[in-house]
Amino acid sequence: MYHMNEPKFQKIVIALGGNALQSKDSAPTAEAQLEVVKQTCEHIADISAAGYELALVHGNGPQVGRILLASETAKDVVPPMPFDVCGAMSQGYIGYHIQQALRYALARRNLGTPVVSLVTQMVVERSDPAFQNPSKPIGPFYTKEQAEQLSAEKGYIMKEDAGRGYRRVVPSPLPRKIVEIDQIRQLWNHTIAITCGGGGVPVAENMDGTLEGVAAVIDKDFAAELLAEQMDADVLMILTEVEKVAIRWGKPDQENLSHLSLAEAARYVEEGHFAPGSMLPKVQACMRFVRSNPRKKAIITSLDKAIDALEGKTGTLVTFA
Amino acid sequence: MYHMNEPKFQKIVIALGGNALQSKDSAPTAEAQLEVVKQTCEHIADISAAGYELALVHGNGPQVGRILLASETAKDVVPPMPFDVCGAMSQGYIGYHIQQALRYALARRNLGTPVVSLVTQMVVERSDPAFQNPSKPIGPFYTKEQAEQLSAEKGYIMKEDAGRGYRRVVPSPLPRKIVEIDQIRQLWNHTIAITCGGGGVPVAENMDGTLEGVAAVIDKDFAAELLAEQMDADVLMILTEVEKVAIRWGKPDQENLSHLSLAEAARYVEEGHFAPGSMLPKVQACMRFVRSNPRKKAIITSLDKAIDALEGKTGTLVTFA
Repeated sequence: MYHMNEPKFQKIVIALGGNALQSKDSAPTAEAQLEVVKQTCEHIADISAAGYELALVHGNGPQVGRILLASETAKDVVPPMPFDVCGAMSQGYIGYHIQQALRYALARRNLGTPVVSLVTQMVVERSDPAFQNPSKPIGPFYTKEQAEQLSAEKGYIMKEDAGRGYRRVVPSPLPRKIVEIDQIRQLWNHTIAITCGGGGVPVAENMDGTLEGVAAVIDKDFAAELLAEQMDADVLMILTEVEKVAIRWGKPDQENLSHLSLAEAARYVEEGHFAPGSMLPKVQACMRFVRSNPRKKAIITSLDKAIDALEGKTGTLVTFA
Repeated sequence: MYHMNEPKFQKIVIALGGNALQSKDSAPTAEAQLEVVKQTCEHIADISAAGYELALVHGNGPQVGRILLASETAKDVVPPMPFDVCGAMSQGYIGYHIQQALRYALARRNLGTPVVSLVTQMVVERSDPAFQNPSKPIGPFYTKEQAEQLSAEKGYIMKEDAGRGYRRVVPSPLPRKIVEIDQIRQLWNHTIAITCGGGGVPVAENMDGTLEGVAAVIDKDFAAELLAEQMDADVLMILTEVEKVAIRWGKPDQENLSHLSLAEAARYVEEGHFAPGSMLPKVQACMRFVRSNPRKKAIITSLDKAIDALEGKTGTLVTFA
């Protein structure tokens, strides 16, 4: 078993999954989100109190989906919002809850560490292969006729979704550049920055240097990985629902892993052990991080085991060798 | 006429009015907002290029109104958002557009000044007299029956609105404390911070130290004034649709003012020259700023005259004496 009895004040980028923001047991309201976020922030404050320097990245899948759905549902009353703007709105929404709750959780521990959410743009490349094969469904379901109309009028790519109707699909390109990286750097030493929310608002660079919002979904784990690389963080920590990554998941011979080397991880990925859109991008983000610098570490574990995992007691540690 | 031939690198807090974000001549879409914001940012970039250090505060009245209206319209499909969350979402929406457009306008001038929007909470006091007399209508119109039901179920205060139906009204308390002031301070010297958007997300302090979002509307001019005070800014600049403040506005003997002392301003306010919710809070914010420190200056002018006004060529300059 690997231990992480390193000196304190390690720099950690934490990626928060959907379960850090919302419970499956309650209605998807803002009020319920705030209650879950308060619990989440108790764990985050514990990590901060243990002396680690943090930045937080959060997902936004369900939230941005609901913002878009509300906007499209109300389209005859209020002009609907483009998808990039929905992403920026979700950063405001989720960031507000986290910074409010985390400030209090820190204060309860006699910590006055400032917390703030930054609206963050993430450059993606129009040449990314994902743009050739948009796969992420967003927004409401439509009939075939409506889908054809949207496709003709707005150029949306529409796909049938498991017999329930048609939905717009958008690409999920890799994050390439954090536009506000300097601003994050300025804050890092003193402040817990909540940044790259939902993977960042996806923007493409035009020939004239302008940035332009694009309809795309960026994986927040890959965004957190890029942030961790660029900030020279010591640890990329991906918090999710399970304590450890498993192979043969859900089968009688399921095996929970305490450690994964890059080579092992690559083999398990190859063998199809990890679900796309779920554990796969998490493992891939960790692989990418330790490949960027063999001295770095990545951890996948659950929110409530984060401190134990940092102390080497549980979680799945991913290292180069 | 007063001149402001001061040394460069003065610190300025700029409050952007509704016309900096949206044109009356186009549909209230996000796409149209971005086009107006691009024009606005050309002027802001000129100010930055002239050597001033800036922070930006923007209003959010129409935007947060539309976010709430869309949310309430779609309420049978997506749980509606509380009003504080709508405010946070509007900060993400507007901040994203400004930081995207301003970055480009600066780059065109060979300036790499970082720009970032901060989700900002603003403490208001529950004892503020405004809570006794909620006056700001928000969200959709309702029938009398719906209004009575909302009042009973959610405790909303509903008022009839000029015969067009009933609307929810919320208070407009004074901003008391910028929660993220330290974070703004950290960024100030290197970065153009977009902060206190829409006056800040209104929060009240509970006895246990927690902050709690409240349904309220904060005047962005008062929020900008508080920011200017706390940042020890040299100038509070309120940009609006008119080049100068006027007395006897719209009358044959209208007089445009190049200068207002605190005493003159107080007299004109007393005499009712300035419209509540429009020029009045702007003049009052300026008065408050120069009263806080008699060496400080406040300016009210239009976006396209901002540079000229800083050079003492136009605008209305408000000073202590």
